[in-house]
Amino acid sequence: MSITVYDLCGADEGLRFSPTCWRTKLALSHKKLAFDAVATPFTKIKEVVSGEAKTVPTIVDGGEQINDSFKIALYLDEKYPDAPSLFGGEQGVAAAQFVQNWTNSQLGPLIASLVIKDIHDVLAEPDQKYFRESREKMIGKTLEEVQAGREDRVENFRTALAPLRMTVGAQNFIGGDSPVYADYIVFGTVKWLMQIAQFEVLAGDDPVKAWFERIDAMYSGV
Amino acid sequence: MSITVYDLCGADEGLRFSPTCWRTKLALSHKKLAFDAVATPFTKIKEVVSGEAKTVPTIVDGGEQINDSFKIALYLDEKYPDAPSLFGGEQGVAAAQFVQNWTNSQLGPLIASLVIKDIHDVLAEPDQKYFRESREKMIGKTLEEVQAGREDRVENFRTALAPLRMTVGAQNFIGGDSPVYADYIVFGTVKWLMQIAQFEVLAGDDPVKAWFERIDAMYSGV
Repeated sequence: MSITVYDLCGADEGLRFSPTCWRTKLALSHKKLAFDAVATPFTKIKEVVSGEAKTVPTIVDGGEQINDSFKIALYLDEKYPDAPSLFGGEQGVAAAQFVQNWTNSQLGPLIASLVIKDIHDVLAEPDQKYFRESREKMIGKTLEEVQAGREDRVENFRTALAPLRMTVGAQNFIGGDSPVYADYIVFGTVKWLMQIAQFEVLAGDDPVKAWFERIDAMYSGV
Repeated sequence: MSITVYDLCGADEGLRFSPTCWRTKLALSHKKLAFDAVATPFTKIKEVVSGEAKTVPTIVDGGEQINDSFKIALYLDEKYPDAPSLFGGEQGVAAAQFVQNWTNSQLGPLIASLVIKDIHDVLAEPDQKYFRESREKMIGKTLEEVQAGREDRVENFRTALAPLRMTVGAQNFIGGDSPVYADYIVFGTVKWLMQIAQFEVLAGDDPVKAWFERIDAMYSGV
């Protein structure tokens, strides 16, 4: 039976831009598991996800619901040990945790400062209202204020990618010869920016761009 | 037979402050291998290390010389597979590479900007001359200029540790329940700063400080 993934969408249901949902979809693909990615706008999440956590990605596999992209990846490696491994064991889990912490703390806020208003603009109207209110309350500024002057910050984003650039300049993936869950963590976050940004995110000769395109091509059907 | 490690020293031969030599000494200790750490000033490296690479750490194990801390760690896991693993397999190697790239690109330059003149000051006179000339040529500024105004940059260093802080705030080590080579990579670099700095590097309640002290206590005999 196919696994269900509740997958964040924009006003256009075909636009699936959530960084963490990308991580989950690539993790499922890596494990060669069939899944249905169900378009889920922000304001419908509470209708499809049960329990305390009201976020996507959430997957339903058989009768079981798992929430949170990292927990989903752990679940998949445990539940489907014969399928290609996402972590390659305990040390891989620990390392992926570090990569996720790096991605979320060093790239996440910079990306928000580049496109937070643009994200708002691709949402359906009720989701726009929710997104603006929740984010402005969290940050203490309007979305327009956060995004203002972003031209000067594109270079900061590229600079922040230095550890990834050094890594994938010397080997094809963070995982070495083939991608692992740590690759999907960063990929999901860069993909999010790539889908929303109407400007050149990465220079043409950036090894990060080549890495991104390698993974994008591997999972072009997702 | 004991392994020899050529280990950078200051004017005081007991002062061993090189971040990469720390990585190697902790890797050897992790593998429970006996070693002699030979005090080696900058200007004596070329006398003890043969071949093209003229840097420390270099180890000599039996007749074999291995240069470069990362290559030494790989060598040790391969040569001594029955001793506790540093990487836990291929994914661990790939992940450690990422952690090293993060450490060297995000922490290394900040630390240099905090203590480069202080490093100079702990060296013996011929090493001071070599260090000043080579570093000033590389950077295009005097050591004094690089270090000036450092008070304002201690906070930048603490901020740059965010991904490590998130990781070791939630688990004891980057490696999870016990330290792995990725831990020693960052530890060596923080130890370097700790040994040289005459100011408070980490706040008392910083999880990074607790992590540092955990590893320092484990290897207090090194």
